[in-house]
Amino acid sequence: MVILGIDPGYAIVGYGVIRAQNGRFVPLEHGAIVTKAGENFNRRLEIIYDAMTEVLQKWKPDAVSIEKLYFKNNKTTAIGVAEARGVILLATQKAGVPVYEYTPLQVKQAVTGYGQALKPQVMEMTRRLLCLQQIPKPDDVADALAMAICHGQAAGSSLRQALLGRRS
Amino acid sequence: MVILGIDPGYAIVGYGVIRAQNGRFVPLEHGAIVTKAGENFNRRLEIIYDAMTEVLQKWKPDAVSIEKLYFKNNKTTAIGVAEARGVILLATQKAGVPVYEYTPLQVKQAVTGYGQALKPQVMEMTRRLLCLQQIPKPDDVADALAMAICHGQAAGSSLRQALLGRRS
Repeated sequence: MVILGIDPGYAIVGYGVIRAQNGRFVPLEHGAIVTKAGENFNRRLEIIYDAMTEVLQKWKPDAVSIEKLYFKNNKTTAIGVAEARGVILLATQKAGVPVYEYTPLQVKQAVTGYGQALKPQVMEMTRRLLCLQQIPKPDDVADALAMAICHGQAAGSSLRQALLGRRS
Repeated sequence: MVILGIDPGYAIVGYGVIRAQNGRFVPLEHGAIVTKAGENFNRRLEIIYDAMTEVLQKWKPDAVSIEKLYFKNNKTTAIGVAEARGVILLATQKAGVPVYEYTPLQVKQAVTGYGQALKPQVMEMTRRLLCLQQIPKPDDVADALAMAICHGQAAGSSLRQALLGRRS
């Protein structure tokens, strides 16, 4: 099963494509879609949509794994992140790929086996599970790969029903 | 000048197309894009994007006028609204139409001349300015038409200023 993990944003969208097979994970491609702060915001959305569509067409993943979004505080950036997330979800819908959402707690649990794990631990375990030489940079890319692993674990485990978080 | 006013949402997107000429406004088309609560969320985003694209292609507006979004409280629906707004902005970007954003205060001011006007007053003035028999339903449609009028007023006044500037 090919899984595309995504860490949404409007300045940086991290993405990671992995193959999950018999509880093992192979990294296929990972990177970041970066848009400039000086660029028109709607143009930034278009760049994200087009780049995301390209990744989806190239890898034809069986599933997309993306973080569940919460607004804890009135951050103005949150609106932009949600708008960017909207065009990412549209790209996956147009590509006909089902989307699964997970909370940060679920990702930590899936990657390290411990819901209270710290960020560096999650990143290091992500690196190990994918047999990468180094933790991918920027953080958004490592986060996206952790999202992908999370879905791989959830889809392959007996906890499938509990962890699968497809939004209707 | 043809203006498309939009009241974004994921259950209902109100839209209104008007022609603004010499300080007068002519309604061309208005309506609502409605998506069902039971539908998959990403499919709802796709329905909104496709319908919005159709309206943009049909009327080829000179400008899109849309409400500036703020998150005052931690409403979970706010994320969905922003995601829907993202795909609407993408549709306008793909259509090559510039987007203008106004606050509710600016809309009230433009339509009624009074920033503290109540919603029924804004709706009644919207009806009168467009010479409509009745206030369009649902409210989202009337709100979208008010957005369009707001840009018509703003663009008209800046045009007047530009002309005055050229004369002096």
